[in-house]
Amino acid sequence: MPNTFGHLFQITTWGESHGGGVGVVVDGCPSRLALTEADIQRDLDRRRPGQSKIVTPRKETDTCQILSGTFQGKTLGTPISIWVKNEDQRAEAYREMETMYRPSHADYTYQAKYGIRNWQGGGRSSARETIGRVAGGAVAMKVLKKFAPKLEIVAYVEQIHTLKAAITPDKVSYAEVESNIVRWPDAKGAEKAVRLIERVRKAGDSVGGIVTCIARNVPVGLGEPVFDKLEADLAKAMMSLPASKGFEVGSGFGCVELKGSEHNDPFVMRSGRVRTTSNRSGGIQGGISNGEDIVFRVAFKPVATIIQAQKTVSTQGKAAILRARGRHDPCVLPRAVPMVEAMTRLVLTDHLLRQRTIA
Amino acid sequence: MPNTFGHLFQITTWGESHGGGVGVVVDGCPSRLALTEADIQRDLDRRRPGQSKIVTPRKETDTCQILSGTFQGKTLGTPISIWVKNEDQRAEAYREMETMYRPSHADYTYQAKYGIRNWQGGGRSSARETIGRVAGGAVAMKVLKKFAPKLEIVAYVEQIHTLKAAITPDKVSYAEVESNIVRWPDAKGAEKAVRLIERVRKAGDSVGGIVTCIARNVPVGLGEPVFDKLEADLAKAMMSLPASKGFEVGSGFGCVELKGSEHNDPFVMRSGRVRTTSNRSGGIQGGISNGEDIVFRVAFKPVATIIQAQKTVSTQGKAAILRARGRHDPCVLPRAVPMVEAMTRLVLTDHLLRQRTIA
Amino acid sequence: MPNTFGHLFQITTWGESHGGGVGVVVDGCPSRLALTEADIQRDLDRRRPGQSKIVTPRKETDTCQILSGTFQGKTLGTPISIWVKNEDQRAEAYREMETMYRPSHADYTYQAKYGIRNWQGGGRSSARETIGRVAGGAVAMKVLKKFAPKLEIVAYVEQIHTLKAAITPDKVSYAEVESNIVRWPDAKGAEKAVRLIERVRKAGDSVGGIVTCIARNVPVGLGEPVFDKLEADLAKAMMSLPASKGFEVGSGFGCVELKGSEHNDPFVMRSGRVRTTSNRSGGIQGGISNGEDIVFRVAFKPVATIIQAQKTVSTQGKAAILRARGRHDPCVLPRAVPMVEAMTRLVLTDHLLRQRTIA
Amino acid sequence: MPNTFGHLFQITTWGESHGGGVGVVVDGCPSRLALTEADIQRDLDRRRPGQSKIVTPRKETDTCQILSGTFQGKTLGTPISIWVKNEDQRAEAYREMETMYRPSHADYTYQAKYGIRNWQGGGRSSARETIGRVAGGAVAMKVLKKFAPKLEIVAYVEQIHTLKAAITPDKVSYAEVESNIVRWPDAKGAEKAVRLIERVRKAGDSVGGIVTCIARNVPVGLGEPVFDKLEADLAKAMMSLPASKGFEVGSGFGCVELKGSEHNDPFVMRSGRVRTTSNRSGGIQGGISNGEDIVFRVAFKPVATIIQAQKTVSTQGKAAILRARGRHDPCVLPRAVPMVEAMTRLVLTDHLLRQRTIA
Repeated sequence: MPNTFGHLFQITTWGESHGGGVGVVVDGCPSRLALTEADIQRDLDRRRPGQSKIVTPRKETDTCQILSGTFQGKTLGTPISIWVKNEDQRAEAYREMETMYRPSHADYTYQAKYGIRNWQGGGRSSARETIGRVAGGAVAMKVLKKFAPKLEIVAYVEQIHTLKAAITPDKVSYAEVESNIVRWPDAKGAEKAVRLIERVRKAGDSVGGIVTCIARNVPVGLGEPVFDKLEADLAKAMMSLPASKGFEVGSGFGCVELKGSEHNDPFVMRSGRVRTTSNRSGGIQGGISNGEDIVFRVAFKPVATIIQAQKTVSTQGKAAILRARGRHDPCVLPRAVPMVEAMTRLVLTDHLLRQRTIA
Repeated sequence: MPNTFGHLFQITTWGESHGGGVGVVVDGCPSRLALTEADIQRDLDRRRPGQSKIVTPRKETDTCQILSGTFQGKTLGTPISIWVKNEDQRAEAYREMETMYRPSHADYTYQAKYGIRNWQGGGRSSARETIGRVAGGAVAMKVLKKFAPKLEIVAYVEQIHTLKAAITPDKVSYAEVESNIVRWPDAKGAEKAVRLIERVRKAGDSVGGIVTCIARNVPVGLGEPVFDKLEADLAKAMMSLPASKGFEVGSGFGCVELKGSEHNDPFVMRSGRVRTTSNRSGGIQGGISNGEDIVFRVAFKPVATIIQAQKTVSTQGKAAILRARGRHDPCVLPRAVPMVEAMTRLVLTDHLLRQRTIA
Repeated sequence: MPNTFGHLFQITTWGESHGGGVGVVVDGCPSRLALTEADIQRDLDRRRPGQSKIVTPRKETDTCQILSGTFQGKTLGTPISIWVKNEDQRAEAYREMETMYRPSHADYTYQAKYGIRNWQGGGRSSARETIGRVAGGAVAMKVLKKFAPKLEIVAYVEQIHTLKAAITPDKVSYAEVESNIVRWPDAKGAEKAVRLIERVRKAGDSVGGIVTCIARNVPVGLGEPVFDKLEADLAKAMMSLPASKGFEVGSGFGCVELKGSEHNDPFVMRSGRVRTTSNRSGGIQGGISNGEDIVFRVAFKPVATIIQAQKTVSTQGKAAILRARGRHDPCVLPRAVPMVEAMTRLVLTDHLLRQRTIA
Repeated sequence: MPNTFGHLFQITTWGESHGGGVGVVVDGCPSRLALTEADIQRDLDRRRPGQSKIVTPRKETDTCQILSGTFQGKTLGTPISIWVKNEDQRAEAYREMETMYRPSHADYTYQAKYGIRNWQGGGRSSARETIGRVAGGAVAMKVLKKFAPKLEIVAYVEQIHTLKAAITPDKVSYAEVESNIVRWPDAKGAEKAVRLIERVRKAGDSVGGIVTCIARNVPVGLGEPVFDKLEADLAKAMMSLPASKGFEVGSGFGCVELKGSEHNDPFVMRSGRVRTTSNRSGGIQGGISNGEDIVFRVAFKPVATIIQAQKTVSTQGKAAILRARGRHDPCVLPRAVPMVEAMTRLVLTDHLLRQRTIA
């Protein structure tokens, strides 16, 4: 249960950052969908370390292997097991972590919870765990393409530290996002963002930011009225990503400063369909998709592992100074984009299959 | 599944705002805990309509009855069924809803999802559904008191529209919160908040706001490393409440403007325990509680049902003007406080029982 | 979880034999199915005590009330809460159970598990708990009728003690089964069965027997290949009924004395469909329905509560003699028939909805 | 969900008989248990093909690799991923299966359910899938040893075709069972059983049989009162094994011929504990373990794949004669013993962890 996500379309991820690798078992995938490693690799490449000068230089090709669940290039309806080996492991670079807790990292809480932890890297708290999510999301996209062919999910970096992208959200395209290494849809400003991250890296520090995600052409009727509201499941999905601190949908925290008469989205008929003239609901009403764009934002904190010296305590309960080595992202945002997309695909696929059981 | 929340300590809620009533089945509750209706009624009274001049005047005593699961005042370990009758039903006041969709309400999406809806009130989207959550939360509190006797959960209204409470979060007490009808912990400013809500109500409009929740003395080690991170389950719980639009934990969206060196919470030893000198983590690191206060904030939008005339469409697809009647909250915040507390209790109880399986 | 059955079509039962009543919440039911109390009452009447001279004389009308989930006679797609009050409670007749454990009953194990039990009747181990299952099964039948209109489920008593019904299983009809109070499809022999049960009752003793169940016109493809094989879920369903001791499907234990060449069911084409010329598979191959009749048998032990004096121990750990009073079934079989049918409906409905998610 | 078993201690198996291998992810395992490949290999070796002259000669060492979840020989509390490669694949030997359905096998139902199947072997219906179960069961045993150190599970072959072992069930030991290649605890008769199986193999036929399983020193209080009765979960576990056709606990189907006064197990005090003087309950009362030996029996049919020519139909719907090649077990019973033990371990571990949440 703790390592499984979804009700009908389920992924179970496994693996530590140091060890035999990381992987995922995808269960509940409909049969007869074309699926090969290439379909998955495309997204893994967007997530992988070493993809550009502004992310961690850990050298991992993150090459995936499908071990089960397909036959002659098609899904069998049986569990799809996907495996990515760990290649560039440097346990030595983490030697300090054996005896010290990194501030704001998971070292201390893992030790307190389990009485043991793999200190050679972040174990399950490492961003490597998200490989399984991204791979699962790639499979989910196949399901979405089958049952909702026009559906489109685009995520992008909207803000890094205090730098904000100049954009019109409903126009952002995948091509624009992928046009630069920050995944910053405002091509003109991208260079600024790159420089900001490089500056921070040189200072041995880190910065956070905001990812916005938009899902277009989502079928009306996805989501459940009570606990499994679509925004609730999206919130859980996003807040389960490493380093996320906040989630908001549609008007989000900004809703507070509007009155009901200003905030409500008036209904109109357009091309024979019920539509709204504004979208403060963010595409979800009463927990259920209304056919407008689903729009939400996720805040990611500055990465906890920094090179600057930090005050902490040792596992023996003594005051200590930590100077981390290892290879770390100065800013997780560019790599968070495919993670956010993957979790969105998983949530929408699960609800799409759920809706098929009652419709 | 769609109406059940929790893995080990589970609630299943049922009931529409108009019909035979609403209720909850609580499953997974340990045996031999003292439990009577009075334990539950206290919280239901804080949630109920008609409790003050600033909430909906619907006349419901919300008197609960325990139908199963206890014997001679103690829990049996078997499912606890709790029922609250609907008393003050006025289907007529909702007659317009039979043929028109309320903007930003669930009317349209329910119709699209199910092809049918109970238009005599909000059905499952009504705040009456939360009776089951609050009752379940009261039972959960019994479990928390047994296994974590010093644990304390306090929620309060921090902001309404643009009005903000002047407070020091870590000092807020239950008594302060309950000292006024807004649940505004800044006693001096409470009268202002009351007047604001009354003004909005007279205008036939509505306002939203922010609830902050603090859980103190939470045992270290609750939460799972990956999907069921404690903040992920809290986010889902809060975003499943009616009208919520955003969730943030610890530094929240504010984390974005800090660098890692500013954001990290340094560890120190204090009274033989590992503690942090700041709490931007909000009491959770790597998805797991670290023993510091768990602090999060939830944004609630202005209630969708307003008295002012609104543009909408009819179920026949015609442009229409809706003038709602019925009895509505101009501001859901005062009643949201016990809902937020209840969901927090449920999440913490579930994780506390989960931790007992592995520790 | 412990009181919930099913993955997509779920029932959660609650209630003790003595207390506020028993009930069920049905979740995952598709919307727009016609459903009233009368649809449910029909099956409850076949299960209820006092229905004939050979079952317990406890006087319960078992009148059900639908408290939620329907509107104007149709299902809403929201949880359906059904409640049956306990009426004829005689806690005094169970006074001995406060201090003594009934042999082969649940008294001792409940006490050991929970440290408390409702000794005024059997608590959750009472056959009254099955009211919720039968009510849930009646709702499930509505779903089956919609998605598999020709599907038919017939259960009957095949054996009581050493008395066996003379029947041809694939011809047995609902009308035949209901033509007598034993639910003995061999009308000629029914009188013998009645006399057997009456004799046992007069002796203050009890007898068991075998229920056979046949599901006809089940769609091909229901069931999962591995853990959730159709026969595995049926086995769990049946072995979860009070007093059941054995389950077998198709050839069952008899399979052991045949060789593969004798046991295999040859395939043939008939009316353009793949069929088998024998049915030792019992309608399920590789865990999945093959379109032939699903046939299985369930053994029920003689009821544990008997009037004859029995050796036991007291809750204080002393040797004791128990002479039960109360009103008990001398033979649970006639009332087990609707229970077996209900559980079969629940399993098939769940798998039918599951199949819709991938097909 | 369809490929996951258990609620708290969960295994998710994956893999087809032909393809990249088979494996399992074990989730919910407590931390700090000593665990290496050797602990798992011992049981896999008892399950593997080629272990003796009476099982399939397919050459597989079934060497397992732990890919995650342990560190320095101890469990981390994180998911344990275990992988076994397929080595001796001979897709060509299954060429006939591409166009013909094996009688009483899963070929037809898989095709009907999924519209596709891996015909190079049995896919998920192959006994290779049980590698994941046996590996998961080996991990479960570690948990049982920690929390219930005296618990012991022994399974053995009690009957093959019409040949029955001469045994006293409560004396059977693991050493006796493993003393011969049939796992026949009556050492004297074992040679007869071997000859029977060899005779059947030479005839190109197959035989079934019965496995009995005994769990000794099970803690009192495991199991849930209603749906998740211990015998219900064991029944599901056993009926989910390939080729099983029946399950009975304690007196089983034999209960039918006894009266209540003969069948009930009288309680007595022995060494200060509540015990029974007979064990027709099979160690479970009201769904909950009572501390006596848990005893149940499972019937396995003769393997469907035989060498003799059989009538069947082709995937094109034409009558056909199938002469299977490939390497098949003439009798699955010797290899079923470790499978039955593994599923028993999984069920008991899950319930043991569940009991810890409420006790």
